[in-house]
Amino acid sequence: MDKKIPVGILAATGTVGQRFVELLADHPWFEITVVTGSERTAGRPYGEGVNWKLLGDPPEKVANLIVQPTEPNLDVKILFSALPTPQAKELEPQFAQAGYIVLTNASPYRMDPYVPLLIPEVNPDHTGLIPAQQQKYGWEGYIVANANCSTTSIVLPMKILHEAYGLATAVVVTLQAISGAGYPGVPSMDILGNVIPHIGGEDTKLEREPRKLCGTLVDGEIQMADFLVSAQANRVPVFDGHLGSVSVKLRQAPTPEEVIDLFQKWQPPEICRELPSIPHPVLIYRREPDRPQPRLDAGSGSGLAWTLGKVRSCPVNDIRFLSLAHNTLRGAASGSVLNAELLWKQGFLG
Amino acid sequence: MDKKIPVGILAATGTVGQRFVELLADHPWFEITVVTGSERTAGRPYGEGVNWKLLGDPPEKVANLIVQPTEPNLDVKILFSALPTPQAKELEPQFAQAGYIVLTNASPYRMDPYVPLLIPEVNPDHTGLIPAQQQKYGWEGYIVANANCSTTSIVLPMKILHEAYGLATAVVVTLQAISGAGYPGVPSMDILGNVIPHIGGEDTKLEREPRKLCGTLVDGEIQMADFLVSAQANRVPVFDGHLGSVSVKLRQAPTPEEVIDLFQKWQPPEICRELPSIPHPVLIYRREPDRPQPRLDAGSGSGLAWTLGKVRSCPVNDIRFLSLAHNTLRGAASGSVLNAELLWKQGFLG
Amino acid sequence: MDKKIPVGILAATGTVGQRFVELLADHPWFEITVVTGSERTAGRPYGEGVNWKLLGDPPEKVANLIVQPTEPNLDVKILFSALPTPQAKELEPQFAQAGYIVLTNASPYRMDPYVPLLIPEVNPDHTGLIPAQQQKYGWEGYIVANANCSTTSIVLPMKILHEAYGLATAVVVTLQAISGAGYPGVPSMDILGNVIPHIGGEDTKLEREPRKLCGTLVDGEIQMADFLVSAQANRVPVFDGHLGSVSVKLRQAPTPEEVIDLFQKWQPPEICRELPSIPHPVLIYRREPDRPQPRLDAGSGSGLAWTLGKVRSCPVNDIRFLSLAHNTLRGAASGSVLNAELLWKQGFLG
Amino acid sequence: MDKKIPVGILAATGTVGQRFVELLADHPWFEITVVTGSERTAGRPYGEGVNWKLLGDPPEKVANLIVQPTEPNLDVKILFSALPTPQAKELEPQFAQAGYIVLTNASPYRMDPYVPLLIPEVNPDHTGLIPAQQQKYGWEGYIVANANCSTTSIVLPMKILHEAYGLATAVVVTLQAISGAGYPGVPSMDILGNVIPHIGGEDTKLEREPRKLCGTLVDGEIQMADFLVSAQANRVPVFDGHLGSVSVKLRQAPTPEEVIDLFQKWQPPEICRELPSIPHPVLIYRREPDRPQPRLDAGSGSGLAWTLGKVRSCPVNDIRFLSLAHNTLRGAASGSVLNAELLWKQGFLG
Repeated sequence: MDKKIPVGILAATGTVGQRFVELLADHPWFEITVVTGSERTAGRPYGEGVNWKLLGDPPEKVANLIVQPTEPNLDVKILFSALPTPQAKELEPQFAQAGYIVLTNASPYRMDPYVPLLIPEVNPDHTGLIPAQQQKYGWEGYIVANANCSTTSIVLPMKILHEAYGLATAVVVTLQAISGAGYPGVPSMDILGNVIPHIGGEDTKLEREPRKLCGTLVDGEIQMADFLVSAQANRVPVFDGHLGSVSVKLRQAPTPEEVIDLFQKWQPPEICRELPSIPHPVLIYRREPDRPQPRLDAGSGSGLAWTLGKVRSCPVNDIRFLSLAHNTLRGAASGSVLNAELLWKQGFLG
Repeated sequence: MDKKIPVGILAATGTVGQRFVELLADHPWFEITVVTGSERTAGRPYGEGVNWKLLGDPPEKVANLIVQPTEPNLDVKILFSALPTPQAKELEPQFAQAGYIVLTNASPYRMDPYVPLLIPEVNPDHTGLIPAQQQKYGWEGYIVANANCSTTSIVLPMKILHEAYGLATAVVVTLQAISGAGYPGVPSMDILGNVIPHIGGEDTKLEREPRKLCGTLVDGEIQMADFLVSAQANRVPVFDGHLGSVSVKLRQAPTPEEVIDLFQKWQPPEICRELPSIPHPVLIYRREPDRPQPRLDAGSGSGLAWTLGKVRSCPVNDIRFLSLAHNTLRGAASGSVLNAELLWKQGFLG
Repeated sequence: MDKKIPVGILAATGTVGQRFVELLADHPWFEITVVTGSERTAGRPYGEGVNWKLLGDPPEKVANLIVQPTEPNLDVKILFSALPTPQAKELEPQFAQAGYIVLTNASPYRMDPYVPLLIPEVNPDHTGLIPAQQQKYGWEGYIVANANCSTTSIVLPMKILHEAYGLATAVVVTLQAISGAGYPGVPSMDILGNVIPHIGGEDTKLEREPRKLCGTLVDGEIQMADFLVSAQANRVPVFDGHLGSVSVKLRQAPTPEEVIDLFQKWQPPEICRELPSIPHPVLIYRREPDRPQPRLDAGSGSGLAWTLGKVRSCPVNDIRFLSLAHNTLRGAASGSVLNAELLWKQGFLG
Repeated sequence: MDKKIPVGILAATGTVGQRFVELLADHPWFEITVVTGSERTAGRPYGEGVNWKLLGDPPEKVANLIVQPTEPNLDVKILFSALPTPQAKELEPQFAQAGYIVLTNASPYRMDPYVPLLIPEVNPDHTGLIPAQQQKYGWEGYIVANANCSTTSIVLPMKILHEAYGLATAVVVTLQAISGAGYPGVPSMDILGNVIPHIGGEDTKLEREPRKLCGTLVDGEIQMADFLVSAQANRVPVFDGHLGSVSVKLRQAPTPEEVIDLFQKWQPPEICRELPSIPHPVLIYRREPDRPQPRLDAGSGSGLAWTLGKVRSCPVNDIRFLSLAHNTLRGAASGSVLNAELLWKQGFLG
């Protein structure tokens, strides 16, 4: 690649926006040339407008960029969107219509039948939905969404099992880290030495998104996978890492050892192996009975790998297992960066 | 009751033993007249031999009792056993043989087909197994066991549902407090800001004990309930309170509102209402979507009530719900005290 | 007391206001007859307007009171103020001027030279400042303030030492609980597994308030005690209880054993012993080297006692020790309730 | 350096020993050729004998070394000692006598008048004590100790102030992480949501070690620095990082800005800058009022830098400040590795 591809970040001063800045500052393929922000910060250098919450200081080359208003007249084609839900809902289609490619971390269009809900290792072929999206909505650009962080933490093994044995049902209970709620997020008065067995909207996301991610692209449409998911999300006093306990019924029942073998030998789709942000390996299977653990395993593969464990036969269903991923590294902004890398490889970035 | 019933405590100086001392010191029916301990403490006043870990100081009248060796020549008939597993396994049958009534918090005989695994609100009629036990083993006394604390936290709603609709399967995930592991128990290095998805032997107990507790006494034998349980126990950085997330398949499927109504109207068996340690109410149903929570609800009913919540229809099974109980108050020593109260009411204490 | 004394609560729907409601609902001397609130809640029954955060439900008799606007035309003379700082600053003098007696938990008038900063066990005679306050400001009513919760946690032993040996200097480091920051208060992202060595304005309060509390009333003025305090406040992931580590230089240097003896024999001023909310004992000295601890000791005396420990000679100053008090029970609303009880005993409530 | 210097690790299978293995596995100057262990592990490959607690797996080249008994007949001259206190006390002099150079993390000889207590950035010249040690004890080898982790966290700024202004007294309160207690270390029952204001022996170490570290080598003896330290150590529920709050009286009183300037401009002794493990910078001064914080700052400089903050004038003494260092990275094994690097540079390993 002779020259880096210029990209912009929508809502670059917020928590997720800062993570995009951090991830893209030294990216081998992309270069941040545009950052947008609210009225309060627009017109000022990014380094002054941002209340930087990550380690160290904002990268110097980004710190000097002047923050622009979030309007579809930006001098860059590829946009990473860290917009909050209401603005994302309103503005992302406007950007797509105006010809921009929007890689969004926001939730409003995740379940839109024409928007790819994309995780490169899970469903790289779903980008085939993009032409249908453009035709359906009359957009020159398009939107691609990454999955919710809790969905992300469990969907890779579900996809592998679905492909191998046909997934019929999954009962999922998640133990989710506080960083998933952003900042200020969960009050310490609520979570110190406690569990909150409720995360607004999360159960629904966990029950729907995996069916789309494991779905099949047929004639410009995603056919949702025909399995059922039951989810109960819990917030626990853990810093990073969402842990899912999953019990599945499969159409063909394997033994636990066959499943462990499947997980251990699994390789991501060929195209993923050339993406610069992909971890090696993508999937780690641990045989210790007390793993994965959030504090020990969420950082595996620089926070981008899935750690699985405890594959056992289930007295009620067929197989049960644990799946863990880092919610802010694998689950949020990084997901969109990996998606952009995949889109580039597939020729969708033009 | 004119005069209190004298009772003894086996292994009274350990963690569970201290809890027995605390619970029985001012009991309206029982009076501690004997405490036993290891060689190290035997012969000394309890107040000197014990390393008291509970609030305040050991009750004065117990502090002055001389600790006796744990041998079946004690001058009292009713014994609460806080013996560790190996000693319990060896010594409890010796005591039963010698004519003592042993109310044990230990695990070895919980699944013995002739030992009642007893929770007064769940299966008060299982004491009918006692004559069969005495006949089978040729004992003059007998053993009655309370359930594991994690089983206790979820079994009451399972029993209620089983009775009303017939339980077919249950997928259970527990989030368990550190106090369940005793002292010193879980190293802080392992659990601070973390989840440990493994508690040795706990999954098996959770999968077997509910079937016995919900079983039926037929011809001097317990027929295990014919449902299946899948359990995944997790340790979380919570001080007190085990929280269970349960998804059940029922033989007749009710609506969530029917189940909520059932829980809200449920009353413990008539005989329970006269037991002095019984909480009022025994079962609390909370309609807030984020309850029960260990820190807010484990102390309900002086730590002896169950708090349920979040009854919802399950996309995979029929009904799912949350159940919480205080693991050291409801789950351990108090269970045996309640069992003793029940046995007295039923005439089994002679 | 034939009939209870009617009292009102300003800003009764907030966190501190709720605590006032809880503390006064069953008070032997006082009866809540008036509650005020913001425009949002005024005109509605308290039980509907309040978002109750404490255990259980709001007391029934208070739940039915109609919330009134916080204006000085209330039909009750004695007011407990839970107003936030800015409103307290503006409104409390208006109430005092209009003849109301204001017992405030707010900070604006704590260091006012004519407002008693009052802790019954520390400086009950400072109520003698009330006539001077009324004369100086031309008020018919008056304001009495309780101390900041961190000051409260350390000032009792400072006063005892000051009285006995003359306090010259104190170097104080506090480890303060999250509940001191109210709700939502400290984000869990900031404090889980962490220490925040900064609480806005707290060091200054800790350096000034003890000098007033230990001061002397002379000719209608408080002469500040002539010692110096250096304070460093830290927030730690503890639920309740502020712990202070204090090293003092005294004008006459005692031995540690003399100080322990002094603490153990200390009795609160005679008048305190008749107050219904006073704990017995007020001061607990523990000899274990690892006490007091917030989780074990903050609840002592129903959360109203001070627990001291670790009196040792100091290689740099004379004596060092630890002091702990429950920040929301002893430190906030309860302080004003105890002050009201003292004022009644002293005849200041009319 | 053409060829790496062979080194051995005593008690290489324990917690500290594993850290030595990790730190030295890819060291640019040193190469692990010998590891020793207890009878249980001796004779087996290190990879089999060790219960590896650090991230990942033991380094391959070390995993294949056969564990040897800890006896002074090892085929290597330079030894890093991770021996527990009693064995260290007995065995380290035997190794020194037998000609070995012992770099110890253990405490028994830290305050020995002839053993350098060494932190390269603080007192690199104290290695001048080595010849006196050899002469005094008739040893061919010698012992060099690193400081206690809590001392380490505060001693660098004390040394800088002592050199610039003459330190007279220091009142120190530390908030120490659980990892400082090793594994299993602090029970979670004791520390979750709590503070333990006691760490056995720590206050004494904090009061004595800084005086030796800041002392002067005169005629083959260390003259202890003539300041006094008062220390109160607290355990807090933090994973890594000891935070010290320090109030100092100086012989010449600077302004806070002068001290900040001194800290910001400070450079480690010339010889330190060439050591491969030295962080750049060694000392970070943060101007935010709420820093340093353990979770945010303990990892600075790969866990080897000190982070200072909150230099303020002290109402009681002259200056107060906060100092933080990573207790297991900077405080333990790494200290000995840095000491070895310094000794090599100074020609003492040769």
